[in-house]
Amino acid sequence: MTDSDAEEPTEEAIMRATYRALSTHGYPALSISKIDDEFEKSKALLYHHYDDKEDLLEHFLEYLLDQFDAELASINAEDPTENLHAVLDRLLPPDVDEEQMRFRCALLEIRSQAPHNEEFHRQFRRTDDLVLSELVSVIERGIDDGQFRDVDAGETAEFVYSTAYGVIERAATLEDAGLMARGRRALDEYVAASLLSTDDRPADC
Amino acid sequence: MTDSDAEEPTEEAIMRATYRALSTHGYPALSISKIDDEFEKSKALLYHHYDDKEDLLEHFLEYLLDQFDAELASINAEDPTENLHAVLDRLLPPDVDEEQMRFRCALLEIRSQAPHNEEFHRQFRRTDDLVLSELVSVIERGIDDGQFRDVDAGETAEFVYSTAYGVIERAATLEDAGLMARGRRALDEYVAASLLSTDDRPADC
Repeated sequence: MTDSDAEEPTEEAIMRATYRALSTHGYPALSISKIDDEFEKSKALLYHHYDDKEDLLEHFLEYLLDQFDAELASINAEDPTENLHAVLDRLLPPDVDEEQMRFRCALLEIRSQAPHNEEFHRQFRRTDDLVLSELVSVIERGIDDGQFRDVDAGETAEFVYSTAYGVIERAATLEDAGLMARGRRALDEYVAASLLSTDDRPADC
Repeated sequence: MTDSDAEEPTEEAIMRATYRALSTHGYPALSISKIDDEFEKSKALLYHHYDDKEDLLEHFLEYLLDQFDAELASINAEDPTENLHAVLDRLLPPDVDEEQMRFRCALLEIRSQAPHNEEFHRQFRRTDDLVLSELVSVIERGIDDGQFRDVDAGETAEFVYSTAYGVIERAATLEDAGLMARGRRALDEYVAASLLSTDDRPADC
């Protein structure tokens, strides 16, 4: 096939189909044929392009991570506190619909395969490193300009990320949007109490 | 078969074999036959006892949860701070070997199936409820006797559990024991800074 072949699905179309199939079926039940089913007009016959579902998913994870990287890079809040909340909005979005919850859960399924798949492991390690370096950078900026207390940026970033991660995992697996909203609120409170400089902190501390 | 039949594996033997097979193969690749392989002397022929692996795993989750419940109940520290740390020791053990990490990861795989399996969903909801009620109870006890600040016990319990959960998930999927140790230390610091009464807290607050 050539690029001009009208039947050739674009990368984006394949990635969208993978997203939908994963959200619907989850990882263990996913197959190349189920992703093919997501193409409305004709079969994309993806097994000509990929060895197996792991091969396709490795590509999919790379695509997702590039998108996430671009999203984080597009945050251009000058103010460190605003910037931090914008990163938290990406980690724990205030509004999540059912398909997004299912998709998050499917991502967890794939992540839990990392001990059995080196490429999955590499991609999720990259994801964590990306989030952590973004958090460290905004925390350091906040410390420099006096908005944040002089905390250990690396330790605080790890703590914030693990908490956000735990909230998503628990909420997505139990399909509990309320848990997600409460978790986000608690994380915002933690940031206010532990990170904001004394002047901006609640009076009881 | 009767209970006196020497070939009949005990429930505990089946559960141990399930634990080993899950740690080795993970959830998607698990089968009744692979659990059978974990019996050294003879095949346990578990497919006579269980419809499929989901059926066996539902039973396994219930068994695990009962064990976890008994473990929590066996904590008999009078002192609320000691008691809280004992609960955290169960959630984020200070020493975890490779098999235990793999097993944790397999549990996450099963948990991520909860949206597709009502019984899994029920068991993991019960697990979360059990942990949370244990945390709430020890926090309330600490507030009552003046060791802890007058926080919202429910919100604090949710926050502590989500953080512990995020640390385990990230560490187990990336097989990173260092991350687990750092996460536990950060959680202990959070408890000291946010929960302990002003008298016991670091001087900079």
